[in-house]
Formats: sequence, structure tokens, C-alpha cells
Amino acid sequence: MNFDAMLDTAINSLHQEGRYRTFIDIARDRGHFPHARWSRPDGTEQPVTIWCGNDYLGMGQHPVVLAAMHEAVDAAGAGSGGTRNISGTTIWHKELEGELADLHGKEAALLFTSAYIANDATLSTLPKLFPGLIIYSDALNHASMIEGIRRNGGAKRIFRHNDLAHLRELLEADDPSAPKLIAFESVYSMDGDFGPLEEIVALAEEFGALTYLDEVHAVGMYGRRGGGLSEELGLAGRIDIINGTLGKAFGVMGGYISASGKMCDAIRSYAPGFIFTTSLPPAVAAGAAASVKHLKEDQALRDKHRTQAKILKTRLKGLGLPIIDHGSHIVPLIVGDPVHTKRLSDMLLADFGIYVQPINFPTVPRGTERLRFTPSPVHGPKETDALVKALDSLWSHCALNRIELAG
Amino acid sequence: MNFDAMLDTAINSLHQEGRYRTFIDIARDRGHFPHARWSRPDGTEQPVTIWCGNDYLGMGQHPVVLAAMHEAVDAAGAGSGGTRNISGTTIWHKELEGELADLHGKEAALLFTSAYIANDATLSTLPKLFPGLIIYSDALNHASMIEGIRRNGGAKRIFRHNDLAHLRELLEADDPSAPKLIAFESVYSMDGDFGPLEEIVALAEEFGALTYLDEVHAVGMYGRRGGGLSEELGLAGRIDIINGTLGKAFGVMGGYISASGKMCDAIRSYAPGFIFTTSLPPAVAAGAAASVKHLKEDQALRDKHRTQAKILKTRLKGLGLPIIDHGSHIVPLIVGDPVHTKRLSDMLLADFGIYVQPINFPTVPRGTERLRFTPSPVHGPKETDALVKALDSLWSHCALNRIELAG
Repeated sequence: MNFDAMLDTAINSLHQEGRYRTFIDIARDRGHFPHARWSRPDGTEQPVTIWCGNDYLGMGQHPVVLAAMHEAVDAAGAGSGGTRNISGTTIWHKELEGELADLHGKEAALLFTSAYIANDATLSTLPKLFPGLIIYSDALNHASMIEGIRRNGGAKRIFRHNDLAHLRELLEADDPSAPKLIAFESVYSMDGDFGPLEEIVALAEEFGALTYLDEVHAVGMYGRRGGGLSEELGLAGRIDIINGTLGKAFGVMGGYISASGKMCDAIRSYAPGFIFTTSLPPAVAAGAAASVKHLKEDQALRDKHRTQAKILKTRLKGLGLPIIDHGSHIVPLIVGDPVHTKRLSDMLLADFGIYVQPINFPTVPRGTERLRFTPSPVHGPKETDALVKALDSLWSHCALNRIELAG
Repeated sequence: MNFDAMLDTAINSLHQEGRYRTFIDIARDRGHFPHARWSRPDGTEQPVTIWCGNDYLGMGQHPVVLAAMHEAVDAAGAGSGGTRNISGTTIWHKELEGELADLHGKEAALLFTSAYIANDATLSTLPKLFPGLIIYSDALNHASMIEGIRRNGGAKRIFRHNDLAHLRELLEADDPSAPKLIAFESVYSMDGDFGPLEEIVALAEEFGALTYLDEVHAVGMYGRRGGGLSEELGLAGRIDIINGTLGKAFGVMGGYISASGKMCDAIRSYAPGFIFTTSLPPAVAAGAAASVKHLKEDQALRDKHRTQAKILKTRLKGLGLPIIDHGSHIVPLIVGDPVHTKRLSDMLLADFGIYVQPINFPTVPRGTERLRFTPSPVHGPKETDALVKALDSLWSHCALNRIELAG
């Protein structure tokens, strides 16, 4: 059996399709986000500006977060020392779960090591709790939701992205007495478009279905206290399970669900991905709790975030660059070819010190390959100006399409 | 649809079987491990000694680990800010992967957010890389391996725990031309027994099968540099994929695999559980790297660990308490009834300030419910003495069985 040859085949097919991923080694400079140092493969360093990070609000360098982390390391050491059940539940985990339940106005919250595993573990456990459960899943749901829904071979229906008529059709086609759940997102990260929360919740109520909402790209940023789009629209109370991350706008790491006390208790008790894993380090839980708490108050930071996103979009549109704008904080710029996208990314990095990863198939459909920018409150006029000028120059240099300025 | 009633049913069945888990809120005191503070549900605190943690060597409070964490927080902030591909690969991740590859004498290593997801993601991705792969899995493999092997519905064979004849029988029954992989552990954590590494490797070589070894309860503690049982037995070079954790003996958090460069590259490129998740915080990677590096040199700490385990086992045996002793660092004390086990755990905590969780079905077979102690270099004569006396007194008080002292 030639295992090596089979690995070669798998890896070569990625190279041939132009979608082999090369990781860029960087070190962000605390206090100077979004500035960082890129370590080139030859060992030399170059200053870069990160334009593709998910630390959407720059909370990863916020003094209250860092102070909480330092304090917890000093108080309790490095790791938690166990699973949640076996010596790994600390006062910091309890505090963070309390903050998150409060954030979403729910009875409880449950921490996971990531939002990926929160989605995977929860969605794969729900069919055990509700035998015969049918899960209705938006076609563009994140990989972690897809993995969780697939895992135990339970019944699933995929509805076309944000297509309410299709969702209704699928709901109507199934046995009215079967338990049902609709799984969807509030902000879809590749196009930056929003899910139709109100309409989906109404449909769920009409059909007696549970709702599972992934707010990973919205928590911290949307809603008066950072409770996500469900808070902004006043819908959190009508959604059964909200999933969120502590690794993006909150700037640290980890994921969670927030739901009723019973729901969290059942997931806590039955999900292997929760039970059999070391809990988050106290310092991570403490940093995340400080961040969640801070963002409940700091509306100014959310406002600044929106302003920076608006400025970037306005300037790119003014130059006729083909961005997608659904009104969210994510700015995708369509290139439409995997090799061009990679080349643009390489030139931005090497020639302009601007770091943005190419996004290729299968993350996005072929023909829609893109650069995706994530402006933040720490991206000021200087950084935005440098980005806009670099893109303008490269677009001309590479003779790429611009859209009609009247369009 | 009465979802609430269905949740009640699921939770009540745990209460009825005596295996509903109650998490104990604790805070370990850095510099004073294994001492900690227990926050009672009524808000009051009680000092406790932790006897069931997985920070096997006390590295969670080691100054080199904590200094590395503080430094990385100061340098780079809280979280990594992205997935490994999209701005989340830092110099700390690269350094840690280098330390781990070196630890196991392999070309490469690949970090995951936990050893759970490392097992799950890798074992579920291998059948994509090797079409038709049959996985032979030890019956007592960890939940994360079982989940990974099950996930994509690939072919699997379960061999009776450590039963080489059964494994051979299964291997012989399959098509000799089918790609094969044997998945097993070096230390099984519930009984503390060892896998027959040499014999399994020989069988794998005879049948041209790949080997996947979970060293989660061995890395840091076994082998001259902490490379696990595969290092201790000089077998690392003959094992294809080694899985380990940074959350137990290394005292921090996270998991990994170590393998050939090609194998790591393929898993990196094809495993959703690796691709679509925020990478570890720089501080976690830095702390773990410092710990791995330190334990390559600190044989004295490993020796002390073994001595403490030996002392505890000798003293418990001397009192006729029914422990299992396979020569590892884990000390299971069989009670054999879920309600008694829980009661003993509660009395140890409340009356003696000794914290050890009850281990019940399905983690262990019914009738073998147990308390499981994890002595460490930070459990000195005072702590051991207090534990032995408490157990002796409770065993008499509850009129529990002792084994014949001659046995």
C-alpha cells in the first residue's frame, strides 16, 4: 500500500486547482493593532498591516482583557487542569457563562473550546434529545454546522440560502408531528449578508420548530449590548439556541451556546464534544469575560467599527472596485479567478505590506474568488488610505475590471 | 411539540441512574498546587486539595510556562485573531509545532484547539485521503477517537481491548489490498493500563497498516524527553501518527498530531476541524511551547511523579483498598456502585477537603464505578497522608470491602 503516493495525489490536486494554502507567519504588535510583523520564509521580517483578521473590534489588545488574563495566570496558573466535570470548572468559567447568558437574555450558557465545536457538538446531540428531529439548514451555513448536522446521520433538509419560500416548502412537505429545528446564521461571513431573522423565526413559530442561530460574526458588534443581530432586532427571546464565539469581536478564544437552563443542562450532559475535553484555561475565560462585559457598555466602539467599514466601502466603490455591500462590516472584493486572487494577495503583502488572504473555492463558489477585508476601529485613516491606494494601483497595473461608476 | 418535556426525560434518566454530573467550582492557587478553593453553591469558600486533575506534573504553575504566557500577552495581545489560514498563524504556533515535531522525532506537527478535535478531525479525514480505508480501533479508545472514526461512516473494526489475537483475526479477514489503519492508545486513562505498542506495531508492519497512537496520558511523563510511551519503548519512528495533548502533563491547553510532513500537510489541507476554527491564542501556544521544551530536560520531575504514584499505591494497597495497579501514574480505586461512589466523593469533599470526582457509567462499565486519583510531584507526603487517612476512615465508616492483605 503506497500511502505516500496517495498523500501526494491529495496535495497535488490542491496545487493544480490553485487552492493550496500557504500560511503566513505573523506577530501582531499589542498596542499597535492592526500592525504586525511578517516573518518571511527566509527568516527576515517585514512590517505589515493586517486587513483580514477576525478581531473585528481590536479587543485582543484592550487593556481590560489583557489585565484580566494576566491576573488569572497569576492567580490560577496556565491551564484548567481537567475537563469541566473533572476538576476543570473554575470560578472564571462560571463567571463567563453568567456574562453570556445575561448578554443574550437567556437562563444559561455553555462554554466550548471553540464555536466550531459548539456547533458541531450541539447540532449532533440534538437528535439524541429529540428523536426523529429534522434539521432545516441554510445552504450557506458554516462548515461546523454542516459537520454537526451530518454527524449522526439524522434527517436534514437544505434550503436555498435565505430562501423563505423554499424553507416553507420543505417544512410543509414533512410530517407535522415530527420535531423540527431551523439552523441559520445572522451574518454570513463570505458575502457579509444578513439572514432574514424575523421571517425565519415567524416560520419556526408557525411550524412549531426550534431555532438555532449562529451569531459568530455578529456578537459583540450588533445590538445595543453586543448581543448580536438577534438583540438588534429584538428577537433573542424568540430564538431557542444562540451560538457565538469568543475568538472574533471578543478578541480571545472559545465558543458557546446560550439557551434555556434545561437545554444547556441536556447538551452539557450528552454532548461528547463538551464532556470529554479539557476546559478553557482560566486566563482565556477571564479575558473573554472581561471583553463581553466591556462590550455591553462600549457602544462608541461599535459605532466606530461601522464608520470605518462605511468609509472603506465608500472609497472602494468610488474607484469602481467590485465590492459586495450588504450593509455589514465585512468587505468582500471580487476578483473572480483563483490565480489572480492569490497573485494580488502576494503583491499586496510583498510590495505594500498589506496582508489579506485570498479566498478561493470551496470556501466560496468558483468564479467568485475574492479578497475579503475586515475594517475595524483600529484601522484609521492612514491604514485605509494606504489600502485604497494600493488596490487602485494594482487594479490598474493588472488591468482588472472596474464597475461603471454610475452603477 | 413539547420540547421541554423531552429535555426533562433526558435529564431525569441521568438522575435515576445516579449519573447526573454536578460540576464543582474551584480555583487553583498558583504556587500552591494541588491546593485550591472550592466555591460552594451557597457562595462560601472551603480550601480543598485536588486529587483528580490532569495537570499531572504541576506544569500549570511552572514559572517558565507562566512567564512565556505573560510575555506573549504583552507582545501580541489576547487571541490570535483568525484561523490558521486567515491571519491566525503566529510565530508562537510555528515554534510550538517545531517543538512537538522534535519531541516525537517526526518531520512535522499540527496544532488543534484540543486533542479531542485532533483525534476527531484527523480520524474522520484519513478516509478521504485513503479511499476504502479500514480503521481497526481498540474497544476502549477515547470518545474523541470513536467520534472521529464514526463520523464519515467509513469501514471500521473494533478489536477487544489490547487483544492482539482478535486484532490479527480482523486484519486477516479483510482484503489484503485494502488500506488499513490501527488506532490505539498508550495509556488508557480509566484503568491506567498500557497498550501493547510493540506487538501492535509489528502487526501493522506485517499487514502494511498505518498506526495512529493516542499518547494523551503519556506525553510529558514517559520517555527520556517526555515523548510518551512510544519514546520510552523506542518505537516512535515506527508509528505513523502520534496524537498528544497540551492540556494534561504540559499543563496548558490544545492538542496536536505529529507525523510526516506530507501527512500533516494533507490533514492541514482537508480537515474541516482544523481549517475552520480560530487558532490557539499566542499566550497558550507560547506557554505550551515553554512547557514542552522544559520537560525535554526535566527528568527529575518525571522521576518524582513516579515516586509519588508508587508511594500512594503502596500505602493504599497496604490498607487493603481495592486499587488497580498496572504500573502507570493513574490510581483507580474501585467502589463498584454509582451511588456509593458519589457519596464517598461528596464526603471526601465536604468533610476532608479532598476533591476527587466519581467516575460512573458510561465512562466505565457498570459495577466498576470508581474514584480515580492522579498523584503528582506537587502532592507531597502531607497531602498523601491526609488522603490515605481519609480513605481508611471512610472505608471503615461505610463498611466497604477491602481485599485480602495477602492478595
